[in-house]
Amino acid sequence: MVSFEPVRGMKDYYGIEAKKLRYLEELFRKHVEIAGYQETITPIVEDFALFAIKSGEEIRNTMYVFKDKAEREVALRPEITPSIVRLYLNSMQHLPKPIRLYYIGRVYRYDEPQLGRYREFRQAGVEMLGSNSILSDIEIIKLLYDFYNELGLSKSILLKINNIGLYRSIFRKFNIEENVQEHLLHLIDKGKKDESMQILNKYISQNNVLNLINTLLYSNLKMDEVESEIQKIGIKCLDEEFNRFKKTITILNNLNIRSVVDLSFVRGLAYYTGIIFEITHPKVTFSVAGGGRYDNLVEIYGGTYTPAIGFAIGIERTSVLINYETYRSPQVVVIVLDDSVIDYALSILDILRSSDIIAILNVKEQSLGKLLSSYFEQNVRYAVIVGNNEKISRKVVLKDLASRSQEIVSSDELITHLRQIL
Amino acid sequence: MVSFEPVRGMKDYYGIEAKKLRYLEELFRKHVEIAGYQETITPIVEDFALFAIKSGEEIRNTMYVFKDKAEREVALRPEITPSIVRLYLNSMQHLPKPIRLYYIGRVYRYDEPQLGRYREFRQAGVEMLGSNSILSDIEIIKLLYDFYNELGLSKSILLKINNIGLYRSIFRKFNIEENVQEHLLHLIDKGKKDESMQILNKYISQNNVLNLINTLLYSNLKMDEVESEIQKIGIKCLDEEFNRFKKTITILNNLNIRSVVDLSFVRGLAYYTGIIFEITHPKVTFSVAGGGRYDNLVEIYGGTYTPAIGFAIGIERTSVLINYETYRSPQVVVIVLDDSVIDYALSILDILRSSDIIAILNVKEQSLGKLLSSYFEQNVRYAVIVGNNEKISRKVVLKDLASRSQEIVSSDELITHLRQIL
Repeated sequence: MVSFEPVRGMKDYYGIEAKKLRYLEELFRKHVEIAGYQETITPIVEDFALFAIKSGEEIRNTMYVFKDKAEREVALRPEITPSIVRLYLNSMQHLPKPIRLYYIGRVYRYDEPQLGRYREFRQAGVEMLGSNSILSDIEIIKLLYDFYNELGLSKSILLKINNIGLYRSIFRKFNIEENVQEHLLHLIDKGKKDESMQILNKYISQNNVLNLINTLLYSNLKMDEVESEIQKIGIKCLDEEFNRFKKTITILNNLNIRSVVDLSFVRGLAYYTGIIFEITHPKVTFSVAGGGRYDNLVEIYGGTYTPAIGFAIGIERTSVLINYETYRSPQVVVIVLDDSVIDYALSILDILRSSDIIAILNVKEQSLGKLLSSYFEQNVRYAVIVGNNEKISRKVVLKDLASRSQEIVSSDELITHLRQIL
Repeated sequence: MVSFEPVRGMKDYYGIEAKKLRYLEELFRKHVEIAGYQETITPIVEDFALFAIKSGEEIRNTMYVFKDKAEREVALRPEITPSIVRLYLNSMQHLPKPIRLYYIGRVYRYDEPQLGRYREFRQAGVEMLGSNSILSDIEIIKLLYDFYNELGLSKSILLKINNIGLYRSIFRKFNIEENVQEHLLHLIDKGKKDESMQILNKYISQNNVLNLINTLLYSNLKMDEVESEIQKIGIKCLDEEFNRFKKTITILNNLNIRSVVDLSFVRGLAYYTGIIFEITHPKVTFSVAGGGRYDNLVEIYGGTYTPAIGFAIGIERTSVLINYETYRSPQVVVIVLDDSVIDYALSILDILRSSDIIAILNVKEQSLGKLLSSYFEQNVRYAVIVGNNEKISRKVVLKDLASRSQEIVSSDELITHLRQIL
């Protein structure tokens, strides 16, 4: 005997729960395809190095990593962006930029399972490779926002935005190495701001710069409140990042995309370089979607400079937020009274189904009375009953399972007739 | 640097190849939902025991098996039927029978990769649990056949059918243990018929029975040609299996489902007990779909007797057989001449997309001349150009990228206008 439960951290979906996941996936697909994004389907099993190269060895602790029979160290992908970058480098470098791609698929994290957080879950996302324009930032953020708007959630979600380029331009100015930058951002993300300030004290001696970072991290000031402080310091690339960010926020406001700037907000993934954003909802404690600009990832993987931006949506996390009640149970059951008329019964089934009526064949060997009761209990509305007489006259008996009333209908008129009553 | 190639045995899909896979999946989904089947989504990572319990330890050699961090021995599913049975036992035993379920998902086999055969591939399938009627056999086979018919392949495919119950009823009559039965069927499947006959000689002393098995395995006789031989032997359950099989074949013929009976045909999977079938195509050397009746699997997993039948379709294998040329590249690009009119440009984009026109936003910072040439090369047909004048007058410049001719169109009339020319 085996356990009937899924493996710990995994979940089965069926009935309305499965329908909800597929509904979200199909809505997403339509939403991004009409905006010119092309689907990519990459393997779930990838070289572990693909994920370790940027995030470091410690990522192993939260991943499914194992050796295949040829001793290759492989992993179940914890996210899909690295695979898209790999695919771009393998097959798409020659294409005109920017390249707009999307994906929908399963990802794996070996975390402690919690309510609504499983070890296997689904992400849908887009990546735009080859542009670093403000317009690409706007396009991506609007695409994400509009998706939640289509779901009727634009009023209840919170879109939080920051530009990690503000931190990075200061770090670069003071020659802080890449890996120390990642470490600092990681500490900030984990709420260990004091620890990050201690490290920064070793690299930066200018008090006004340290004060600015302190302000960004702790004070919850608005854009225009930090603007003068930034200008006073006079770091050119910081000014540029700030002005770009300000412009983006202005445009988003003009587009009625409601967002909240949080200058102390940092996202977990190590590869972001510019604007970052995240969607939360009061109903859930974790973010339901997020993304950002990652201009260096293609280079880190060995390609030429290719700026990029993208986002990923948590399908299960989003499905918690929506009501979806269009579960369609079978409307008609076709009951064959005699084996010799199976062909006629199946031709009736074909007619029903090609008219978009969910119709099942009765395969149970029970008395007609029992069958009619049990299908009624299963919410089937009509029974189409066929025997020898019906086959010869090209008719069917149509029985309303609620009222038990019945009528004889010719097979040609069955659909017209059902359309009136269904 | 990491490898840009997928891990050995894995494959990336994009462009037309990705579209083909999704097209098949969506067609399958529609086809089985209208017949009353409900989707199930089960994890890719399952307890290894789920697969080993029926197929034995040797299945390990062709699977991805590994230990998770809690030392659970898990596997990437090599097929989906065992997971459906597990889900049935866990959550669906109380539902009225039969239960009609379907799935679409990735499976994994650690075989030597060949052309069109990867270690990660996709299957779509159905399972009907809780019926052993002839009608359920007919329903399942017709559902499979009709799918290939919808793809326009009914004339070129070959549907091969047998009833493994013929062998099993003889084996049972002579008290051959279950595991020996599996071994015998495995040998027959692998073409080692002589070896299986040698084993049978130890269990069966009656020459007429051995002769019958010999005839089934080697002679390629038709149903009516073996009928008298079977009747002469006088094994009741064999007679019943044969009569049922004969009746099924007659009905399939009446339904114009072209099939070929092959009494020596056995399928690899160990759990089949009755009718089995497989679809092949001259274009490929491997089968593209297959299935059969498995009346004991639920019991083997620890449930009560629940007869069942199902099939699985190889998505990639089937996609090799179809032509699919409806690749839609973006039809319109919207070009913003001035950052101050981004909001107007994005509202035009919304109008285009909500009318089902694939429209992209230009995010490149190049001269207008360069942009128009490069979008023309990418097969975009029209550019919608907006600057300050256009925003004020609520108009756009609509440019035909082939002829380079242009006209001024009001934003209200843009869709009507495009409909005439696209």
